[in-house]
Amino acid sequence: MARALVARSTFLGGDGRCSSPASQVSPFSHVRIGRPDRRQREISCTATVGTGIAPSSRIESIENDGRVYNFAAGPATLPANVVKKAQQDLYNWQGCGMSIMEMSHRGKEFLSVIQKAEADLRALLAIPDNYEVLFLQGGASTLFSAIPLNLCSPEDTADFIVTGSWGDKAYKEAQKYCKANLAWSGKATKYTSIPSSGSELKLTPGAKFVHVCANETIHGVEFKDWYPAVGEGTILVADMSSNFCSKPVDVSKFGVIYAGAQKNVGPSGVTIAIVRKDLVGGAQPTTPVMLDFKTHADNKSLYNTPPCFAIYMCGLVFEDLLHQGGLEAIARKNNDKAEILYRAIDGSDGFYKCPVEASVRSVMNVPFTMASPEMEAAFVKEAAGKGMVQLKGHRSVGGVRASIYNAMPRAGVEKLVALMKDFQARHQAK
Amino acid sequence: MARALVARSTFLGGDGRCSSPASQVSPFSHVRIGRPDRRQREISCTATVGTGIAPSSRIESIENDGRVYNFAAGPATLPANVVKKAQQDLYNWQGCGMSIMEMSHRGKEFLSVIQKAEADLRALLAIPDNYEVLFLQGGASTLFSAIPLNLCSPEDTADFIVTGSWGDKAYKEAQKYCKANLAWSGKATKYTSIPSSGSELKLTPGAKFVHVCANETIHGVEFKDWYPAVGEGTILVADMSSNFCSKPVDVSKFGVIYAGAQKNVGPSGVTIAIVRKDLVGGAQPTTPVMLDFKTHADNKSLYNTPPCFAIYMCGLVFEDLLHQGGLEAIARKNNDKAEILYRAIDGSDGFYKCPVEASVRSVMNVPFTMASPEMEAAFVKEAAGKGMVQLKGHRSVGGVRASIYNAMPRAGVEKLVALMKDFQARHQAK
Repeated sequence: MARALVARSTFLGGDGRCSSPASQVSPFSHVRIGRPDRRQREISCTATVGTGIAPSSRIESIENDGRVYNFAAGPATLPANVVKKAQQDLYNWQGCGMSIMEMSHRGKEFLSVIQKAEADLRALLAIPDNYEVLFLQGGASTLFSAIPLNLCSPEDTADFIVTGSWGDKAYKEAQKYCKANLAWSGKATKYTSIPSSGSELKLTPGAKFVHVCANETIHGVEFKDWYPAVGEGTILVADMSSNFCSKPVDVSKFGVIYAGAQKNVGPSGVTIAIVRKDLVGGAQPTTPVMLDFKTHADNKSLYNTPPCFAIYMCGLVFEDLLHQGGLEAIARKNNDKAEILYRAIDGSDGFYKCPVEASVRSVMNVPFTMASPEMEAAFVKEAAGKGMVQLKGHRSVGGVRASIYNAMPRAGVEKLVALMKDFQARHQAK
Repeated sequence: MARALVARSTFLGGDGRCSSPASQVSPFSHVRIGRPDRRQREISCTATVGTGIAPSSRIESIENDGRVYNFAAGPATLPANVVKKAQQDLYNWQGCGMSIMEMSHRGKEFLSVIQKAEADLRALLAIPDNYEVLFLQGGASTLFSAIPLNLCSPEDTADFIVTGSWGDKAYKEAQKYCKANLAWSGKATKYTSIPSSGSELKLTPGAKFVHVCANETIHGVEFKDWYPAVGEGTILVADMSSNFCSKPVDVSKFGVIYAGAQKNVGPSGVTIAIVRKDLVGGAQPTTPVMLDFKTHADNKSLYNTPPCFAIYMCGLVFEDLLHQGGLEAIARKNNDKAEILYRAIDGSDGFYKCPVEASVRSVMNVPFTMASPEMEAAFVKEAAGKGMVQLKGHRSVGGVRASIYNAMPRAGVEKLVALMKDFQARHQAK
């Protein structure tokens, strides 16, 4: 009985285009009401508006229905279709008469959301049954404390392989809760490499765990296929915040994988921990209740009120990743995008430089430098004016940084590379 | 040069009304594009849709453009206009070309959001300058650990006045970090009262702090004007999660006020802590970095990535509360709503019973019982069918519970009371 329904908007009183040069085209995006798979009614509305935005946000060339290419490192761009769906459903989720934000976390509606999110994540990563999936608050920064509190007694040793700023923070925080040992550090070479074999590591026999940060956002170094082999009884722990769900992972290699959502899989506010079940329980007695894996495992992440909206958004992202063909397909797309960008950098005769050792260059975060900070600033500014934003490098290292997570469209990378070539052509002589 | 622009939607292909009895009217809400204060263009689109919802969510009588009256205790109903505004802006926030969910937390756009949220909250509560306002993750349940960790050394005593389940949880968690003393407990009378004078309390001279839970959601007891006087050097700490911003508060009485947002001021995922500045620093050495007030005070809540969307939503709520006239006006509205409901209960000749002592009955959470669990279940079910949902009492106490936070419209309470009277008339003889 479905009837196709299309609404056309008729405008009374001119075309509404603002005469101010500050105006910009912001077409109202296509809206679908109701569940997309049946009985849908569609209304398309378009308006040309002036928005009176402060000058520094003025964007003169807009594509993609007003959307910019957002190269931020986190929070980061989300899939446009996911944001649209969230927008459609925000006021009245599936006809329940309330927003997903307003629902009891113990009601059947939200339970269906969190359960599906978990199920989809398990499918994406092929998570074995002997692992818990926990939706937590507090960011990876809270896991820096929680991991040693849960896995160690204060006398236990834990080895840290520090390939950048985030692994370094994990190492420092762990010192409160265990004997943290620096098994390897890339600091001397400005975090441009990753150990490639166990022989480089100063691992402690009988260490409770070995910690790595799978992808370092600031320096752009990423573990590829190699992870350190750990001894019997030693757990491999990985902070995968910034490459989570960007490629397949053999979860069974790890005791704990954790990830703040706000790089690849959602907005900020939820952190996912995948914990082997035998590692739950036995936390140090002074562990805060909210940092104890057992609290969350026993209550399926509903010990207290979870970050419901963030979990809901992750669920939409996981569903979308499955629709795209899962992580093998996603990894291919990401590798293609990264290759386009790195090829442009390496082929620029030194106009753009990436200091990271080629075999460990991150597919997610691409830092590069130019001849001077002034040149970098000019490039970043020009890119922003052309709808490519957040390219400024991290404040601790400067330079330029393009974060090209799952949701960065290939077209965004191509546009960036086109600008890089054009910018070089205009500035080469200088 | 602003031109008024109105679009009318013309429907091609019938009125689209679904013939299935499961259909419901879900008019698409009024959408405004651009900043509401100038150069706005408005498009109104309406469609009648069927949404194919699972039978248990079917709601047969809808008011308020599809919106139900949601009496959940948290997450809870938000102001409808706030949810609509968030929906309008979700895909493209103020023409920036990205969602508030996708922005760098260190960019000027989000900084403006968090700064305004803080400024508006300071205005609402008249927070003195010598207090920090912190936007945290982890819920009040994390503050149960953080408060003693920040305020006490392990040898210090802290007094707990336990008027319900939440105060009890705070008391139990604190035992890990200090000498927690139970200064008063309402357990013997099933948490239906609050101490009315200091003489009832077993306070410890020299206690580091005295902890209260200002409003207990499960049992419906609320501190009114009286708070325990504390000795020189003793800090008064209050969990105000469930009545935060429902009425004016003299912040200067307290050393710390904390509140999960998801009762009165936002979605779940952010917890607000108002901390007197001299109490920042000096946390126990093993305090996790994310539980140390100093971490967040020093970094204006941006030590790591905060829960950006939740903070944004709180900002919209604070702005709306100011538009409504601030907390004096809000308190009057809340008192009126509560009075309507308690009067209906007390005037029912025992058909509905509220066990809470009249002088401490919560204005936020109204629990009541009926003749039997079966009667309660029938009432809750009938109410749900009439668009009044989430009335089931907390699983630990049963019964019925109407949470009537700031955002519950007076009309919702009136509708509930009308049903109560009608239900009684139909069931009185039984």
